[in-house]
Amino acid sequence: MRKIRVIGIGAGHPDQVTVEAIAALRSVDYFVTADKGTGDNGTGDKGVGDPLLAVRQALLERHLGTVPPVIAVRDPERDRTPDDYDRAVVDWHDARAEAYESVLLEHDGDVGFLVWGDPAFYDSTIRIVEKVLARGAVEAEWDVIPGISSLQLLAARHRIVLHDIGQPILVTTGRRLREAKEAGAENILVMLNSTIDLEGFETWDIWWGANLGTADEALVSGRVIEVAVDVLTTRIGVKSSVGWIMDVYLLRKRPENS
Amino acid sequence: MRKIRVIGIGAGHPDQVTVEAIAALRSVDYFVTADKGTGDNGTGDKGVGDPLLAVRQALLERHLGTVPPVIAVRDPERDRTPDDYDRAVVDWHDARAEAYESVLLEHDGDVGFLVWGDPAFYDSTIRIVEKVLARGAVEAEWDVIPGISSLQLLAARHRIVLHDIGQPILVTTGRRLREAKEAGAENILVMLNSTIDLEGFETWDIWWGANLGTADEALVSGRVIEVAVDVLTTRIGVKSSVGWIMDVYLLRKRPENS
Repeated sequence: MRKIRVIGIGAGHPDQVTVEAIAALRSVDYFVTADKGTGDNGTGDKGVGDPLLAVRQALLERHLGTVPPVIAVRDPERDRTPDDYDRAVVDWHDARAEAYESVLLEHDGDVGFLVWGDPAFYDSTIRIVEKVLARGAVEAEWDVIPGISSLQLLAARHRIVLHDIGQPILVTTGRRLREAKEAGAENILVMLNSTIDLEGFETWDIWWGANLGTADEALVSGRVIEVAVDVLTTRIGVKSSVGWIMDVYLLRKRPENS
Repeated sequence: MRKIRVIGIGAGHPDQVTVEAIAALRSVDYFVTADKGTGDNGTGDKGVGDPLLAVRQALLERHLGTVPPVIAVRDPERDRTPDDYDRAVVDWHDARAEAYESVLLEHDGDVGFLVWGDPAFYDSTIRIVEKVLARGAVEAEWDVIPGISSLQLLAARHRIVLHDIGQPILVTTGRRLREAKEAGAENILVMLNSTIDLEGFETWDIWWGANLGTADEALVSGRVIEVAVDVLTTRIGVKSSVGWIMDVYLLRKRPENS
């Protein structure tokens, strides 16, 4: 039985890959990845485009003697302004599953799906593999290898625990940040955002990071009212100098008496 | 300047350690860890006791030619039934900081603090290092190396994404599970629990895992009403056969129409 391995390769730094992931990378005949084409992550999806190809190539070369073929699967077109967001995402995943199925039928052997960060957080690869297998044309065993997520690098670089003692953490997307606050969340980790809008969070603290694990990593932290401009200008600076940005941030409400 | 390195060593499997963590392990003169003595994790803290020593030793031997000294710092006594939980935790952390300071003053050189999972989640090591340095007697540079957390292994082993498409994840402790549900959370990842009580969650789905990354790993998933007994009996079985248990689980409310 052929194998499909969903491999978390971390946020970008070649050393932030586990021994298990390296063994998995070495075990397969070829890789597949999403080719987003644009390098724009303002899509509500974690995948990023061409500018990250060089980062990924360096990572693979670091750990593999010879890098097997990497087949980039072009993403189907997607409705950017759907009436029904969830439905649009599902339709798009169906179209992606068909595209991946074609690749798997054309190319025999064990395959590694390369996933930035960890497949468990805001990534569609696991759902795509399930859909491909459910369609029945491709038969395979499959497993998932966890990787270091950008949210963990954010914490490590700022040298923080992601919550106050014994408190919860809400992990969510930029789209849902406001509803999280309205529902009373006081410690919010935001993973996907095409834009950043800190209005209403002026008295909170923020720990922000961009392009974590790469040479262009940027960090800002402090009280939102004091550092919001720094976050915004750093964000623009990274995007214009590097060509892409992936950022993540933690917002925490200060205790009443501080 | 001497270095303190807070090193996430994953949930237990020797291969679920990053290349960066291995380099950090190799860079220090000795390690310090918490000696909980009891092997009981029902303390609201992630550290575990003696039964995990063998797991950690195997991990270190796998990656280091010669394992440098591991100094286990005995935890101070802790008030298990405090009137003020947060205050009791803070006092206990102060006492721990003093204990670690003594070790660092007695032993020169670079030191690695070994942390199960990831230092970013429900672990006190970062706060202890900050406290030790704030006391002023120990001077050091310090950094944090992320590791694979049990919550990531839970997802990988069950081959799931930790949320429905675009939805938030609330990460919390067993103590706060009920208030999370009352506040409307519908996708809850529970990381610390001395006991497990699924009452009120009968119609939800659960993905449960224990001793993830070790040879005694156990998994259960399904609708709570159908698998709750299986979770409880598996939990008891693991604890009695292995001598310790560390479990983590995801609870997700089913959509209304399913």
